[in-house]
Amino acid sequence: MSDLIIWTYDWVPKGPRGFVRDLRLRWACEEAGLAYSVRTVPFDGRETNHLAQQPFGQIPFLSDGDLEMFESGAGLLHLARKAESLMPRDPAGEAQTVQWTIAALNSIEMVTVPWWFLEVTGAENNGLSDWAKSRLGQLEKVLSEREWLVADRFTVADLLMADVLRVAKLRSYGDRPASEAYVARMTDRPAFKKARADQLAHFAAADRSR
Amino acid sequence: MSDLIIWTYDWVPKGPRGFVRDLRLRWACEEAGLAYSVRTVPFDGRETNHLAQQPFGQIPFLSDGDLEMFESGAGLLHLARKAESLMPRDPAGEAQTVQWTIAALNSIEMVTVPWWFLEVTGAENNGLSDWAKSRLGQLEKVLSEREWLVADRFTVADLLMADVLRVAKLRSYGDRPASEAYVARMTDRPAFKKARADQLAHFAAADRSR
Repeated sequence: MSDLIIWTYDWVPKGPRGFVRDLRLRWACEEAGLAYSVRTVPFDGRETNHLAQQPFGQIPFLSDGDLEMFESGAGLLHLARKAESLMPRDPAGEAQTVQWTIAALNSIEMVTVPWWFLEVTGAENNGLSDWAKSRLGQLEKVLSEREWLVADRFTVADLLMADVLRVAKLRSYGDRPASEAYVARMTDRPAFKKARADQLAHFAAADRSR
Repeated sequence: MSDLIIWTYDWVPKGPRGFVRDLRLRWACEEAGLAYSVRTVPFDGRETNHLAQQPFGQIPFLSDGDLEMFESGAGLLHLARKAESLMPRDPAGEAQTVQWTIAALNSIEMVTVPWWFLEVTGAENNGLSDWAKSRLGQLEKVLSEREWLVADRFTVADLLMADVLRVAKLRSYGDRPASEAYVARMTDRPAFKKARADQLAHFAAADRSR
C-alpha cells in the first residue's frame, strides 16, 4: 500500500458525483504518477464524525505517512512539492504556481461557490451575480492570452482552476470562449478522465453495498 | 532599499483604512524582521490600470527582486519560506501552516466575505448567514481548544486567520468568545500594531497631497 491516502466519503448522492473534491487529489496523483490509495469516512454524520481530521466536516483530506492535511488546495501544494510534473522547480515558477492556486481558491471560487449556493437555494439572479461575472470576465482575459496559467506548461494551478470553473457551471455566466476552451483542454487530459471515472466507480460501488 | 516591495493603492477612502490587505504583508514582514518598502498603484482606475501585475485589479502584490506575485495568501506563504518565525521548518509544521492558511482563505473567508458583501449591499439576514454562522461555529470549537492554529506557536496561518476574522466583523455572527479572544491576542502583537499604524499613516499622507 502506498503512503499517500486520499480520504473521501463512503457514499454521496448522485448529484455531486464527478465533482466531489477528492477528484482534485486523484487527478494530481494521476498526473504525477504518484501511487495512492483511497479510504473513506461516513457520509452519514459527516457534520461531526471526522472533525478531528477535518474541523469543517468536509472531505477530502490527505495522508502522507505521518503527515495529515485537509483543504484540497493544501493537499495539491503538498503533492506539487513531490512532483515536478505538477510545479516547476525554479523560484518564479513555484511562486506563480502558488499564486494561481490561491487565486483559483480565493479570487474565483470565493465568488463562484457562494453564487452557486445562493442559486441552488432559489435566488437565480442573486446579489453575487455581477461580482461573479466580473471576476470571470477578468479571468477570461487572462485565458484568452495564454494556454496555461504558469510557465507555459501544465501545473497544479491549471488543475485547480479548471476544476473550480467546471464546478461553477461556467456556461451560466455567459459567453466565455477562452475559459470554456481551457476547461475542455484540461478535462480532456487522461489523468482527469481516470480520476473522474475512478470517483464515479467508487460511489457506484457504494450504492450496491448500501 | 530592500528587495521586498509591498504594493498597495496610493489612496483609499476612510472606510477600509486599517483593513486593506497590504496590512497582511506588512504584518508578516514586521513579525519576521524582514526589511521592505511600500510602493503604490493608483486607486483611481484600479479596475484596469495594473492588470499586468494583478489581473483582478486588486492589491496587494509583492515583489521580491525579480519575483512578483499577487494574492495576499501567496505573498504570505512566500514570506513564510524566508522566515522561520512565520512557519516551522519541519514537514508537519509546514504542511499544517499551509493547510490553515488555505483554510482561512477557502473555508472561512470564502463564506464571510460574500456574506459581508451581501450585507453591505442591503440584505441584512441574507442567504449566506446560516452558512457563515456554521463555519464560524466550527472554527470557534477549534479555537476554544488551542491558543495557536499550528504547532503551539505563532505562524502566518494565525496572522491570516485573525485578519480574516477581524475583517469579518466577528461580533456580527453571535457570541464566539474563543474566536474573539484569539483575534484580540493576535491584534495585540506589536507587529500588527505597527503594520496597522503604518497603513493608516500611508493613506493619511495621501489625503494631504490629494
